[in-house]
Amino acid sequence: MGSAVPRFHGSAVYFVFVLICFGEAKRLLVIPQDGSHWLSMRAVVEKLSERGHEIVVVAPEVNLLMKESKYYTRKTFAVPYTADDLSQRFRSFGNQPFDEVSFPAMILGAYRSLMHLVEMFFINCKSLLRNREVMKYLEETQFDALFTDPALPCGVILAEHLSIPSVYFFRGFPCGLEHAISKCPDPVSYVPRCYSSHTDHMTFAQRVLNQLISFLETPLFKRLYIPYQELASELFQRDVHLPTLYRNGSVWLLRYDFVFEYPRPVMPNMVFIGGINCEEGKILPQEFEAMVNSSGEHGIVVFSLGSMVSEIPMKKAMEIAEAFGTIPQTVLWRYTGETPPNLAKNTKLVKWLPQNDLLAHPKARAFITHAGSHGVYEGICNAVPMVLMPLFGDQMDNAKRMESRGAGVTLNVVEMTSKDLSDALKAVIYDKKYKENIQRLSALHLDRPIEPLDLAVHWVEFVMKHKGAPHLRPAAHDLNWIQYHSIDVIAFLLAVVLLALFISLKCCLFCCRKCCCKSGRMSKKSKSKSH
Amino acid sequence: MGSAVPRFHGSAVYFVFVLICFGEAKRLLVIPQDGSHWLSMRAVVEKLSERGHEIVVVAPEVNLLMKESKYYTRKTFAVPYTADDLSQRFRSFGNQPFDEVSFPAMILGAYRSLMHLVEMFFINCKSLLRNREVMKYLEETQFDALFTDPALPCGVILAEHLSIPSVYFFRGFPCGLEHAISKCPDPVSYVPRCYSSHTDHMTFAQRVLNQLISFLETPLFKRLYIPYQELASELFQRDVHLPTLYRNGSVWLLRYDFVFEYPRPVMPNMVFIGGINCEEGKILPQEFEAMVNSSGEHGIVVFSLGSMVSEIPMKKAMEIAEAFGTIPQTVLWRYTGETPPNLAKNTKLVKWLPQNDLLAHPKARAFITHAGSHGVYEGICNAVPMVLMPLFGDQMDNAKRMESRGAGVTLNVVEMTSKDLSDALKAVIYDKKYKENIQRLSALHLDRPIEPLDLAVHWVEFVMKHKGAPHLRPAAHDLNWIQYHSIDVIAFLLAVVLLALFISLKCCLFCCRKCCCKSGRMSKKSKSKSH
Repeated sequence: MGSAVPRFHGSAVYFVFVLICFGEAKRLLVIPQDGSHWLSMRAVVEKLSERGHEIVVVAPEVNLLMKESKYYTRKTFAVPYTADDLSQRFRSFGNQPFDEVSFPAMILGAYRSLMHLVEMFFINCKSLLRNREVMKYLEETQFDALFTDPALPCGVILAEHLSIPSVYFFRGFPCGLEHAISKCPDPVSYVPRCYSSHTDHMTFAQRVLNQLISFLETPLFKRLYIPYQELASELFQRDVHLPTLYRNGSVWLLRYDFVFEYPRPVMPNMVFIGGINCEEGKILPQEFEAMVNSSGEHGIVVFSLGSMVSEIPMKKAMEIAEAFGTIPQTVLWRYTGETPPNLAKNTKLVKWLPQNDLLAHPKARAFITHAGSHGVYEGICNAVPMVLMPLFGDQMDNAKRMESRGAGVTLNVVEMTSKDLSDALKAVIYDKKYKENIQRLSALHLDRPIEPLDLAVHWVEFVMKHKGAPHLRPAAHDLNWIQYHSIDVIAFLLAVVLLALFISLKCCLFCCRKCCCKSGRMSKKSKSKSH
Repeated sequence: MGSAVPRFHGSAVYFVFVLICFGEAKRLLVIPQDGSHWLSMRAVVEKLSERGHEIVVVAPEVNLLMKESKYYTRKTFAVPYTADDLSQRFRSFGNQPFDEVSFPAMILGAYRSLMHLVEMFFINCKSLLRNREVMKYLEETQFDALFTDPALPCGVILAEHLSIPSVYFFRGFPCGLEHAISKCPDPVSYVPRCYSSHTDHMTFAQRVLNQLISFLETPLFKRLYIPYQELASELFQRDVHLPTLYRNGSVWLLRYDFVFEYPRPVMPNMVFIGGINCEEGKILPQEFEAMVNSSGEHGIVVFSLGSMVSEIPMKKAMEIAEAFGTIPQTVLWRYTGETPPNLAKNTKLVKWLPQNDLLAHPKARAFITHAGSHGVYEGICNAVPMVLMPLFGDQMDNAKRMESRGAGVTLNVVEMTSKDLSDALKAVIYDKKYKENIQRLSALHLDRPIEPLDLAVHWVEFVMKHKGAPHLRPAAHDLNWIQYHSIDVIAFLLAVVLLALFISLKCCLFCCRKCCCKSGRMSKKSKSKSH
C-alpha cells in the first residue's frame, strides 16, 4: 500500500511546490469501477497525483486491474469471494456471446451473466459500506472531493455519507440514464435508445421502437439500483431516493465526442472528454516492431476482442483464421485460447498487444474490434478503418455509430462466415471511402482546444477547490414532474380560457334571451295590439 | 482601407510562418453589428489576423465603431443616411429611458426608439445586398467561412448566398430565440423568459407569466425578421424560411457564463465565451492613476451608463451628484452632459474612462452600471460589487441575475431618489456579503481550462479548416414539429392500445354473452324441466 503523502515526479516538482506553497494541494477520494472502466480514469488519477494532490483509491482486495501504484494510496476492503470466483464471473460474461443457442436463450444468457457481474459489484459495495475500519478511516480523513465511476452508485452513496462534492467519470449508463438523472432533455424522436442499434435518423417504425425502449428505462433503473437504495437507506437510517443522490454530482466527465456520439441536448455540468484513453503512439516493443516491419507494403491488421474475451469456440477461431489467410496483410491477433490448426503464416497470435501504439503505426491498415468505446476511440484517434464485431453491452450501438459514418463494417460474430470477414477486411482496406471517412472523423476529433486529459484534471481540481460547482446545477432539480413540464400552468391557463369562454357564452346567451324576450314581448304586444 | 494580404505582428511571426507554410492560413468574411456588439467580436478578429488569416470586414460607410484597422481589410458600402442621422437615432434610443412619462407611454416610447434602430439596421442590410459592386467582390472572393453577429440576419443570408459555413458570435437574441432556432430544449418552467426579470426559481404566478411571454416569442421573431425573409427571398428568387437559414450556423459562440446565466439545456454546437471582453487590467493613463491614488483608503467608485447614454435630465443628474456627496469614496463618472451644479468634490466627471482597468484596480470599491452584459462581465472578472441601473433591452434581466446572486443592488433609474442611490452604494461597499459574493462568482468565472478568446479563435479556425462542423448538427433539424415531439408515435401507440382494449372488450363481451346464453338456455331448460 502506498503512503498518503503527496508525491513528486520528475518535471512536475516545481508545479507541485507551487501548489503546496499556495495551499492548493487537495485530498481526493477515488471510488472506481473495476475492468476497462478503470483504465482511463487511472490516467486522470495519475496526472492529479503528479500535480501534487493526495489521492486515496478504495478498491476491493480481490480485483482485476486496480493495483497498487506510486501515484496513490490504495485502501482495500475484504470481499467474500476469491480471485478465481472473480475471473470466472468475468470469463463467463466475456465468453457468453459465442454460445450458439437460440435468440431467446442468448438474451437470457446475456442477462444472467450480466446480473452475475452486477451482483458481484453489489457485494463489493455492501462489503465497503459495512466495513467499519475502512469507513472510519474515510470518515476521519478530510477529503475535498470524491471522484467516482457512477455506473454503479457506491461512490454516489459515499459522497452523500461523507458530505463531500463529487465528480463523475464514465461513458454513460445503460439507456442514457445520466440524462434522466441530470434533467437533461432527451428527445426520443432523434436520440436513439440503447441496444436499438438505431442512428439519429430513424424511420417511423424505428421511432416507435425507440419510444417503447424508452418506456423500459425507469424499470431498468429500478431493477439495477433498488438494492443500492435499500443499502443507502440502511446506512443513512432514512428513506433514500437514489436519483436525488445522483443529482448531487457536481460535474459529469463523459467520455463523449460528437464524431462518435450523435449530437443531442446536453447540460452545462457535462464535460466531454471522449478520446481521453488515446495516448500519443509510443515506440513499439522490439518484438512488435519486428512483426510490423516484416509486413512490407501491405501493412498490418490489429485484432482484439478486448480483455473480457479469453477464448472463443475452436470452430469460430478456425473460421477467423481462414479469413486471415485470404489477405496479404500481417494480422496481429490478441488471443489467449488454443491456437487454431489452420492459422496462416501471416497471422501472429499474441497474449497481449500494445493496441494504441500499433494503431498509431503508419502501417496499420485495419482494426478488428469488439467495438468497446475505448477501442473505437483508439481507431478514431489513429484514423484506422474498423471491422466491428460487437459482443455485449453498448458495443452494438457503438458499431452502428461507426458504420453509419462510413468508417467501418459491422459483423455478427456468431453468424458471420469466413468469407464475410474476408470481404469486410478487404472492403475497409481497399475501398478508399472507409479510410477517407475515418481520416475525416479523426481530424475533427483531434482538432480540439484542449486535450481531454487536461480538461478532466481541470474539472476535478475545480470541484476540489470550489467545493463543488453549484453554479452549474439547473433549477430543474427543485421542481417536481408536474411543475417541470408546466402541467399545472397549462391546466390553469386552460381553465382560465374555458372560464372566459363559458362566461362569454353565458353573456351572449343572456343577451340573446333578452333580445328574444324583448322581441317576443314586442311581437306579443303588437299581436295583442293588432287583435 | 487596409490591404487584403495576411499581416504579421510581433511575436506571432513564427506561428504565422508555420500557418502559411502548411497552407492553414484562411480567408474570413466578417459581417458585424455596430455598437457595443462589435467590441468583443473585434478582439477575436484581431487575434485571428495575428494568426495569419486574411480578414475582410464588411461595414456600412456610416457607422459608429467599425473603423479601419491594420488587422483587417474593411469593405464599406453606401447607406442612405448621414452620420448625424445615425448618432441621432442612437441618442434617442439611449436617452429615452429617462423620459418621465406614464408606464404605457414609456413602453411605447421604448418600442418606437428600438424599432427606429432596427429599421436602420434593415436599411443597412438592404443596402449591402443590393450593392452590386460589393456583392460582386464578395462572390468572387473565395472565403473559407463567414463570422457574424446574428442578432440581425444579414450575415446569415450572405452565408447562404455565398455557400460558405458560418460562425455566430453574440450574447443571444431577444427571448432566447437562439434556442428555438438550434432546436435546443428550453423548459419554460425554470428558464426565465426575457424582460420578465425572473430568476430560475419562480413562483406559480411567475411561471404563468413566463409561459405567457413564451407564447409571444414566435410573433416577436416574425415582427423582427419578416422583412429580412422577404429580402432574402428576393435575393435567392425563391421562398426563404429564415429559421432554416439560421440553422446552418456551424458554431454558436455565445457570450454566456453560468455564474451570470442560469444553468439550462444547451447544444453541442454552442460554445460559451462569456467574459471574452475582460482583458487583463492594464496600467492606467496618468490622469486616472492620479485620481485613483488621491482617493486614499476609501478607494473609488466607477460609474458609467454605457456609450449609448450621452446625457440625462439635469434633475436626475443632480440627484445622482447629491448621492455621491454622501460617500467618502472618489467617484469617477463617465458623463458627456452638462455638469450638475451640486457636484461634490469627490466626484470627477470624465468624457471617457478605462472602465475595465479602473475596475481591475485594487482600490475599486463599487461599480455603478447600466447592467449591459459587457459591463457586468467586467464587474464579475474584477470582483467589484455593483449598483445596477438597467435602462433597456436585456439590462433588467442582467441586473436581476446579479441581484439574485447577492452581488449587487438594482435601482430603477427613473424612480430612485438620491437617498436610494446613497443607501445602495453604502450597502455594496460596506456590507461584506456583496464583496464576498462577487469574489466567489469571480473565482468561479475565472477558473477555466482555456481563455474565452482562445476558445473563440479555435472554433472559428475549426470551421474554416473543416468547412463547417456537421458532426455537431443535431438530427432534430430534419424532423418536423409533429415528428420532433413524437406526436405521430404517441398517437400510433395510443391507437394500438385502444384497439387492443376494444378487441379485448369485444372478446369479453362475446364470451359473457356466450356464457349468459348458455346459462340462460340452461336455466330455461331446468325451468322447463321443473315445470
